[in-house]
Order: sequence, then structure tokens, then C-alpha cells
Amino acid sequence: MTGTVTVLGAGAMGSALATPLRAAGWRVNLWGTWLDDHLLDACAAGSPHPRTAVPLADGTRLFYSDRLADALDGTDVVIIAVASVGVQEVARRALPGISGSRALLLTSKGFSPDDDGRVRLLPDALRELGAEHDAELPPIVAVGGPCKANEVAAGRWTATIFGCRDRSVAEESARTLGTAAYRAGTTDDEAGVEICAPMKNVYAIALGLADGLGERHEEPFHDLKAATFAQAVRELVILAGLVGGRAETATGLAGVGDLEVTGLSGRNKVYGARIGQGESAAGALEAMTAAEQTVEGVPAARLAKDLVDQRDGAAWGELPLLAAVLDVIAGADDPASHVARAVLPGPPGNA
Amino acid sequence: MTGTVTVLGAGAMGSALATPLRAAGWRVNLWGTWLDDHLLDACAAGSPHPRTAVPLADGTRLFYSDRLADALDGTDVVIIAVASVGVQEVARRALPGISGSRALLLTSKGFSPDDDGRVRLLPDALRELGAEHDAELPPIVAVGGPCKANEVAAGRWTATIFGCRDRSVAEESARTLGTAAYRAGTTDDEAGVEICAPMKNVYAIALGLADGLGERHEEPFHDLKAATFAQAVRELVILAGLVGGRAETATGLAGVGDLEVTGLSGRNKVYGARIGQGESAAGALEAMTAAEQTVEGVPAARLAKDLVDQRDGAAWGELPLLAAVLDVIAGADDPASHVARAVLPGPPGNA
Repeated sequence: MTGTVTVLGAGAMGSALATPLRAAGWRVNLWGTWLDDHLLDACAAGSPHPRTAVPLADGTRLFYSDRLADALDGTDVVIIAVASVGVQEVARRALPGISGSRALLLTSKGFSPDDDGRVRLLPDALRELGAEHDAELPPIVAVGGPCKANEVAAGRWTATIFGCRDRSVAEESARTLGTAAYRAGTTDDEAGVEICAPMKNVYAIALGLADGLGERHEEPFHDLKAATFAQAVRELVILAGLVGGRAETATGLAGVGDLEVTGLSGRNKVYGARIGQGESAAGALEAMTAAEQTVEGVPAARLAKDLVDQRDGAAWGELPLLAAVLDVIAGADDPASHVARAVLPGPPGNA
Repeated sequence: MTGTVTVLGAGAMGSALATPLRAAGWRVNLWGTWLDDHLLDACAAGSPHPRTAVPLADGTRLFYSDRLADALDGTDVVIIAVASVGVQEVARRALPGISGSRALLLTSKGFSPDDDGRVRLLPDALRELGAEHDAELPPIVAVGGPCKANEVAAGRWTATIFGCRDRSVAEESARTLGTAAYRAGTTDDEAGVEICAPMKNVYAIALGLADGLGERHEEPFHDLKAATFAQAVRELVILAGLVGGRAETATGLAGVGDLEVTGLSGRNKVYGARIGQGESAAGALEAMTAAEQTVEGVPAARLAKDLVDQRDGAAWGELPLLAAVLDVIAGADDPASHVARAVLPGPPGNA
């Protein structure tokens, strides 16, 4: 089946998804938030999208922020692709349209603390929002895996993973939304897919740190980077378990795959590299913030700390790298040694 | 306990290990094969080792190839660190010394076909060699994980993994041979550690291909590279199972960790990158061979094919990337599409 997909959020990923969706035969309504007007202006003018440098797919219909109801009118599938801080507000405004759709896909990723500071995954936050408003939500499909928006927009090969508690919905979505270039695997492990995404940003800081050390000393620290990568995967397995997810999600596209692509480039890696080169954590963050480069891994690490404390504090024994990243972003002296101690095997008997 | 370690093979890894071994308080006898004379000459002259560009650790005792018996005299631990094609011959000559030692560590990696073409892992081949000569071997410790010789030699942080069927021997080895910088995790999964090492060279060819595509088209194929990485990890899990090893070995330092470091650099990746850039597989291999750059992943892929056929041909359904690499090295047209088809999720129902 095809029909109409409404994409909420006209940033990099939202606009990029128009490429496979149009290729798969969908009508695509791309709605921009109140922060996205300049992005829609560029697309309307036929210019490349400012965030992906790729022109929007032909036939995509643009909706400015004041036309949310029109964008959602009669839609079959809704995709939320806004920055994670905006998810709750956008979803609240879009609830009527979402409730009438057959599936809600979520490419936004992050943690969502409730008013009491309890850290939730985004799908749980959305279900609670729906319940508060007596709105019945369609099945939620968590979209994860190694997907760079500019590559999706350009139609280059991309493997994503759709996680829905009702696996048949994940499969139906993969079948109908995918193309030869943009293909989705499926799982019923929604929570596993969700937690890998923000956590890979956290661990990318540590991967970047090894890169920065190499630049500082003009010799590679590849062994440290690889040990960091392996430890990050181990910890993704533990964290997936903490939220009811499965190890194979963490060792698959959502975990290993996304961590790999995030360790190749991106702001979290750059932030870590600056620290590895010798900048202070605070100075590096300040400089990047001034350049409007959000380092998502920093707030994600702090929320992950709360999540672990709230779910099972005993898990800290198996999360030394998360603890080390928290130390590093808090400005610990000799950050490289913090990471090395966390990722190198301990002496037998003390492991 | 410390005592004397004899390292057989004075190439990059053999000479590098002198750094942690000396730091851990061992007497180190470094024996060079009949191909290593020029390497020992350089070390004896106090020059950096030609393969690592790092001077040999102080106090390492050098033994030229005609002094094998002297190098092994009274030794406590033997480490085989020769090229995999030389393992059988060196081990045969060293059998008396090996038999008298307490542990045999193996950093050499690869497949060893017997006279009937049956593909064996190196420890199995060594045990068969011992049995043929009525020599009792000490426990074998497979040494794996992300260890670049030049980084080990320079004393930079390195996490390795020691796999021995008798885990207490792995732990004793890790405790006594490790240092603050060179640290070993332990497992009883000898076979899992062994098979990950040659296979990461095979999969690094596919990782390199994505890099080469990016260079050719002047735009990154990071999504493809990450999907390839994730599929490679899935296949390492299958292959570990085929030889009686465990999934967590493949998703740990021996698999994920070593694949990560191999995908960052190295000849197998370079060979794949040349193909991705548009060279023919045969042309790329010829050019690298002419430059004395052995591409270990090519023969390893062919032996892996035989191993899968011999152990469980039904596993091919779960090894599409290995099949694709075999097609690529055989000169298939459009190699990138072969890899992409292998690593992108199939349509639901046809997976």
C-alpha cells in the first residue's frame, strides 16, 4: 500500500526521507516547525536543502508551520523527525492527525525526562502523552541504524532498522517505505533500537578522544580507539537490557552499525577529538556551541546516568566507559587515561 | 611468575611484544626465521625495527635462525609470531622447546589446510602436528583483538584477548604477560578468537570498497560502510559458531574490536579501496603484490569458503557478505552492487 506520508520536521533527516518515500510512490507532505521556515524557503526556491546540500525530492509538498492540520489531513503514515527536544510539543499539536494514521515512525532520538525527572525513551513519552489526552496512538516504529541524512537524500545505499512492538507493522513499513537503495530490517525490539541512538552519540565522544590523541601526538591511537569501540558495544548490550531490549539489537545495525558511522564523522566525535587534542571539555563545548554545533552526546550522557541510576544502579559495574565519558565531560584531568582505564581489560580476578 | 619467554618470529608483532614482555619483567629471547636476518641486523645495530619503526625493547636477546635450540633453551613460555604460512614449519622445528614450556601463545593467524584440503584453525593444526611427533604440547593460548604492532612496540594502550581452552592458563598468561598499557582479557573460546582474526581481513576488503567508492565519487558512502560493518559482525558470529566458538567472542575484542582497527588502515582495506575506486580485482592484487604488499584477506576468503563448505554448507544463507567478497575478488562486474546487495536488509518475507 502507498498513500500519504506526513513528515514532521524539515531538517536534515525529515527532508532526506522524501527521497526514498517519493521513489517508493508515496505522496509526501513535509511540514516544517516554527524553526524551519528558512529551510522550506530554500526548498521552495529549488535550492539544495541547506542541511544536506541535496535538492528536495520532486513532488514533495511543503507545509509551513502554521499549516500543520493541512499537512496531516487524511494522512496514512506520520514520521516525526524533529530535534528530540521538540518531539513532545510537536506530537501534542499533531495528536489528532497522528491518531488517525496507521503508523507513527520516529526518527527523532533521545531521552525524555518527565516532570519528576524520570528518564523515558521517546516512544514511552509519546504513549504517555497520548494517554493524557485520551488519544489512541497508532503503532510506533522506532527508526534506527546507520543513516546519514545527506546520503539518504542523495539516494545512496542505506540500511536502516525499524523496531515496532508489533513486528508485522515494522515489516509492512519496511516493505512499503523502502526502495532498492533505502532498505529497512525489522525487529520487535523498539526499546533496543531507541536506546542505541542517543547512546552512540555518548560513546562517539570517547572514539573521538582517541582520534584527537593521535593528532596531538602525531601517531595513531588505533588500538585504543578499537578497544573503546568494543567496550562501547558491550555497554550498548547492557543498556539495551536495562530498558528491556535485546543484545542482538545492540550488536546489529542499531548499535554496532550506527556507532560505526558516528565514529567516522559528526559533532560528538569532533567534540571528543578536541578534548583528546588537549582542549578542556568546557572550552571545547563552548566553542562548538558558539558555532551552533550541538553536541547531543553531552546531555544524553547526563540523562543516561539518571536512567541507569533509576533502572538498576548495580549496572554501573558493567558501564565503566559511560562513567568515564561522564568524568571527561565534567572536566576530569587526564581524560585519555580515564577512557583507557575503562576500556582496557582489568587484571584477571579483578575484572 | 616471570622467567624466560621465547618469541619465534622477529617481524612486526614478534618484535613489538618485546616491549610489554620486558616491561613485565621477563627475559625475552627473540628468534628470527631464515627470512628475518635483516630485521635482526637492524635491531642489533640499535636501529628502529624496520617494520614498526620503533627500537626493540632494551635487554631483548637476539637469536638468528641457526640458533633456534639456544633461543628455546630452558624457556618457560613460547610465542609463535611468524607469518601463518610458516607456522607449521617453525613449530615442527621448535617442538622440543615448545613441549618443555608451560604455555604456547599464538599471535600468528590464519587457516591451515591439511594434505587432504581440510581447512583447520592453527591450534588444531599444531595439536595434530604434536600428535604426529608424539610431542605433548602445553596449553595453547590464541592471542587476538585489536593490536597494531607499531602501537604495541611503542607502549601505547592496547587491549588484547587471550583464548585458551583452559581458562586458568589464559588468566595466568594475562596476569603475568600484561602491563599497564598492554592488557589482555581472557576467554576459554580458543576457536572463536582464532577464526575472527583471518576473517576480519576478509571483511576489511568490503569496508575498504566503501571507502574507495567514496573517493571515486567524491562523496562519502559511510552508510554503506557502516551497514557492511554490521553485516560483517553478524557473519563473524555465524562463523564462530561453525567452529564451536561463541557469539560474544565475535561481538567483543576479537571480532568487533579487531574489525574496527582493520577497517581504519591496512592492506586488506587498501586492496578493497582500489577496487572501489574502479581498478579490477586482478589489477589491484597484482599491483600490491608487486609492491610486496601481501593481501591476506584474499587467500583467507578462499580458505573460508572451503571451511564453510566442509563444516556446514547450509550456513551460506547467512553469509552473503563472504559470498560477495568471493565474487569481488574473482573479478565480478559492479563489485559495489554485490556488496550492497549482501549488506542491505532484504524485503521482509524474502530475508
